[in-house]
Amino acid sequence: MGTRIAHAELRKKVMSAGEAAAKINPGDNVGMSGFTGAGYPKEVPVALAQRIREATADGESFRVGVWTGASTAPELDGALAEADGVDLRLPYQSDPVTRSKINAGTMDYIDAHLSHVAPLVWEGFFGKLDVAVIEVTGVTEEGSLIPASSIGNNKTWIDQADKVILEVNEWQSLDLDGMHDIYYGTALPPRRRPVMMTSPADRIGEPHLRVDPDKVVAIVETNSPDRNTAFKPLDADSKAIAGHLLDFLMHEVKVGRVPKELLPLQSGVGNIANAVLAGLLDAPFENLTSYTEVIQDGMIDLIDAGKVSVASATAFSLSPEYAERMNNEAAKYRKNIILRAQEISNHPELIRRLGVIATNGLIEADIYGNVNSTHIMGSRMQNGIGGSGDFARNAYLSCFVTPSVAKGGAISAIVPFVSHVDHTEHDTHVIVTEQGLADLRGLAPRKRARVIIDKCAHPDYRPMLEEYFERAQKVANGMHTPHDLALAHSWHRKFLAEGTMR
Amino acid sequence: MGTRIAHAELRKKVMSAGEAAAKINPGDNVGMSGFTGAGYPKEVPVALAQRIREATADGESFRVGVWTGASTAPELDGALAEADGVDLRLPYQSDPVTRSKINAGTMDYIDAHLSHVAPLVWEGFFGKLDVAVIEVTGVTEEGSLIPASSIGNNKTWIDQADKVILEVNEWQSLDLDGMHDIYYGTALPPRRRPVMMTSPADRIGEPHLRVDPDKVVAIVETNSPDRNTAFKPLDADSKAIAGHLLDFLMHEVKVGRVPKELLPLQSGVGNIANAVLAGLLDAPFENLTSYTEVIQDGMIDLIDAGKVSVASATAFSLSPEYAERMNNEAAKYRKNIILRAQEISNHPELIRRLGVIATNGLIEADIYGNVNSTHIMGSRMQNGIGGSGDFARNAYLSCFVTPSVAKGGAISAIVPFVSHVDHTEHDTHVIVTEQGLADLRGLAPRKRARVIIDKCAHPDYRPMLEEYFERAQKVANGMHTPHDLALAHSWHRKFLAEGTMR
Repeated sequence: MGTRIAHAELRKKVMSAGEAAAKINPGDNVGMSGFTGAGYPKEVPVALAQRIREATADGESFRVGVWTGASTAPELDGALAEADGVDLRLPYQSDPVTRSKINAGTMDYIDAHLSHVAPLVWEGFFGKLDVAVIEVTGVTEEGSLIPASSIGNNKTWIDQADKVILEVNEWQSLDLDGMHDIYYGTALPPRRRPVMMTSPADRIGEPHLRVDPDKVVAIVETNSPDRNTAFKPLDADSKAIAGHLLDFLMHEVKVGRVPKELLPLQSGVGNIANAVLAGLLDAPFENLTSYTEVIQDGMIDLIDAGKVSVASATAFSLSPEYAERMNNEAAKYRKNIILRAQEISNHPELIRRLGVIATNGLIEADIYGNVNSTHIMGSRMQNGIGGSGDFARNAYLSCFVTPSVAKGGAISAIVPFVSHVDHTEHDTHVIVTEQGLADLRGLAPRKRARVIIDKCAHPDYRPMLEEYFERAQKVANGMHTPHDLALAHSWHRKFLAEGTMR
Repeated sequence: MGTRIAHAELRKKVMSAGEAAAKINPGDNVGMSGFTGAGYPKEVPVALAQRIREATADGESFRVGVWTGASTAPELDGALAEADGVDLRLPYQSDPVTRSKINAGTMDYIDAHLSHVAPLVWEGFFGKLDVAVIEVTGVTEEGSLIPASSIGNNKTWIDQADKVILEVNEWQSLDLDGMHDIYYGTALPPRRRPVMMTSPADRIGEPHLRVDPDKVVAIVETNSPDRNTAFKPLDADSKAIAGHLLDFLMHEVKVGRVPKELLPLQSGVGNIANAVLAGLLDAPFENLTSYTEVIQDGMIDLIDAGKVSVASATAFSLSPEYAERMNNEAAKYRKNIILRAQEISNHPELIRRLGVIATNGLIEADIYGNVNSTHIMGSRMQNGIGGSGDFARNAYLSCFVTPSVAKGGAISAIVPFVSHVDHTEHDTHVIVTEQGLADLRGLAPRKRARVIIDKCAHPDYRPMLEEYFERAQKVANGMHTPHDLALAHSWHRKFLAEGTMR
C-alpha cells in the first residue's frame, strides 16, 4: 500500500473509495479526470453513486455537477447517471445511460468547445468548482503528481477546486513519467501571454501536475484498466474514405499547396479516423507529425513504422491490445508522444499557427457545407462537439469524413438542410464520403451544392437532393443559398415518421 | 501632379484611371483596398466598369473576381456590379447593387471570416491574384506606401498580385502617416511564429506598406472623400440595448469576473454599436481600450473624453463630420489609434489572448442561442459574416445585440429555429434586445430557451415562442434541444407568404 505515493504526508491520506466519496456533498460541482475513456477515476465515482443511491432511498436529494475532460466510462458517467446523481454534465460524453438521461430531459448538458472549457472555468462563467477527482500514475517525493493516460482538464480542476481527491492507479505505467507536458503559463486577460510553441514537438511545460498538498483530502489506490475499446476491422467504406482523402493530400502536395511532409495531422476519434491513419502507413509521406486530441492505434503503427516522428495529444484512446503495449513500452514512446492539457492540445492559437490538417467525423452535412456533429434529427444529443470546432475553424485544411448513409441506408448523411449546425459553411473546406471527395474551397454556395451532391451523396439519395436543389432555386427568396423552407427538414420529418429518409 | 509621390521612378507611372484600368484583363482576380467604406480606390474601378461595359457592348465577355477587405462603396462595388463585371466577390459587401446580383444568382459570393481571407489567399485556396488596386495616402522617397483610412487586406494584395495599381488620394490626410502598424511577420506553416502582442497598444510592425516598385504598373492621382455615412440619431431601442449591456458589464465587474477597466472592446459596425460607445461616455469605466475592426464616431468621442486610451482597428468608419475632423487632427489621434492589417485586427490568437469583449449585431437568433448574421429568411444574403465569427468564437465575452423586432414588428429577431446559422449555440454568451439581456453562460439548451424568450423576445411574439417551445418538448425525439421540425421554419414561411410572422 502506498508504494506509488512517495510523499509522506500525502501517504497518510490514503483511504477507501467510500470514505473519499463522503467528502463530496450534494450540490457540489465535481471536476473529474478522463478523456475518451483514458485516465478517469475508477472507484470514487462508483462509491459516490452508491452514496447518492442511499441518500435518494432516504428521501434526500443528492445530485452533483460533473465536469470532465471529455467522455469517460461506465464506472464514471454510467454509474452516476444510473444513480440519477448528475444535475449538469459538461463538456462531452459518449455514455449510453448519460445520453438517455440528457435526451429524457432529466440531466442538463452543456456542449462546449473543448478548448473553451478551462478558460470559461477560470473566468468563473460556470460557477465554483468544489471538488476535483483525478486519476494519476503516482505521487512524487515532492508531492507533485505523475499524470496518467490523459491530461484533459486535470490541471484546471486541481487548480480551481477547494478539495482534491486523487486516485493512484497501479495499472497506469510508471514509464509514462516524462511523456506529459503541463503548461503553467496560462493566465486571465489582460495578463495572457503568447504560447511559445512552433512545432508539435516543442515541450513548453513540466512533466508533473502541481498540487497544494493541503487541498488533497483523500487518496484512493486502485488497479484497473482504462476503458479501451477495440477498433472495428477496417471496412470497405472507411478504406474508400481514407483513400479519397489521401489522394487529395497527394494532389495538394503535387500542386504545392501543402508541404511534402504534410502539416501536423489532427483526426477525430473513431474507426474512419483510424482508417485514415492506416492508409498513411502505405502512403508516400515521411516525417509526419500530429497535433491532435487523442492517440489511437493507427498513430502507434505510424510511429513504429517511422512515418510519424512526434504526436501531440491530450489522451490515449487505444484498443486493449495497444494499451497493454503502451503500458509495457511507454519508455520507448516517450520521445515520440507528448500529452498536454486540453486547453493547449486544442488551442486555436496553436492550431492556426501550426497549420493543422484537421479530419473530423460528422452526423450530417447539408448541400451548402454546414455540418451537424451532435444532434440526431435536430433534437437528440448524440455525444457532443468535442474539439471538432477548435480544429475545423482554425485548421489549414478542414476536412469532414462520413459514410454517405447510416442505418442501412435509411439515413442520408447529406441532407437539404442540417437539423442542427455545429460547423458553418465558413469552416468546411472538404467533405469526404466513400462516394468521393468534395473540395469546397473557393466555391460560392450553389457551386458547393453541385459538388457535394455529385461527389458525396449516395446514389440512392442523389436524385432526391437534385430535386430539392432544383426546387429550392425556383421558390427561394434569394439565390445565394436557395432553400425551400417548407421542405428543408422534410427528410428528417420523414425519418421520424417512417423510419427512413427514402 | 505627383506631389505625394516622392519616389522618382514611381512618379513616372502616373496615368489616367482609364489607362490604369486597361492593365486589368478579363478573368483577372483583382484585390482592391477598402474596408467599411474607407480607403477604397475611387477611380480605377469606375474606369474598369466603363471598359467592361464597352467590351460587353462589343459582344465580348469581361468579368473579374473582386477581392476586398470588406464593404466598399458605390464607386467600386456599385459600379462594377452595375456593369455586370463581377464573376466572384469576396469576402464581405454591403452594396445594394452587388447584393441584388448575388441574390439574383448572377454573381458568385464567398462569405468568409475576415481573419481567414489573407491566409486562404497565401495558401492558394482561392486561386491566383492577378492585380492589386490599392488606395494610399502617398509614396515615400524610398518607394514605400503611406496607407490611407483602412488597411484591410492591402498588404496581402500587394504581396500576392503580379501587378499593382496605386491610387494616391489627396483627400486622405498626410497626418495619418505613423498611425498604421503593418506586421510583416506572417508566414505559411510550418514557419508561422507567435504574434508577439499582449496589449491593443502594442506596435509590432512598420508604418508603411512595402511594394516592389517593378510590380507597380500604374499610379492614379485622385482627390475624393471616403463613403462616410452619418450615423442615425440614437433611438430609444439602441439606447435601451446599450443600457442593458452596460448594466451587465457593471455587474460583471462587481462580481469580479471582469476587471474594472473592462477588457479590450470590440463592437460591430452600425448604430447599436455606436449607441453602446455613446453609453460608455457616461458609464463609470476608465482606462478603456479597444481591439476591433473599425473606429466609429463613438470611439472618437471616448478618446476625446479620455475614457479610451488606445483603439486598434483595421479601418475608420466615420460620419462625414468626424472624417473631416480626423483628416484635420490625425496627428493628434496617432497616439490613440492604431490601424492594422485585418489578419491581425481579427486574429483568433490575439482576440483570445487579449480577452476581447465582443458585441455584434445579428439578423435573428433562435431560442437556443444560434445566430444568423447573414441570410434573410434562409436564402437571401444581406451583407456577410464579416469579422463577427472571429470575435464571437474567441472572445472573453461574446455578446449579440439586436432590436427584438424588424419591419415595424412584422419580423421577430427571436425565432424558433434560425433560417441560417453563422454562430452556433457554443459561441453565444449573451443576447441583448431592447427588452432585456439573456445571460446564457452555464445554461443547458432548454434553460437558454427560457431566458431568451423571457428576456429578449418582443411581447407580441413571446406567447408564440412559448407555444412553440411547449409543443417542441411534446413532440421532439430528444429533450436536449427540443424542436418540432414541421414548425421550426413556419415563422419564416409565414413571412414569405404573408409579409408578417405574426
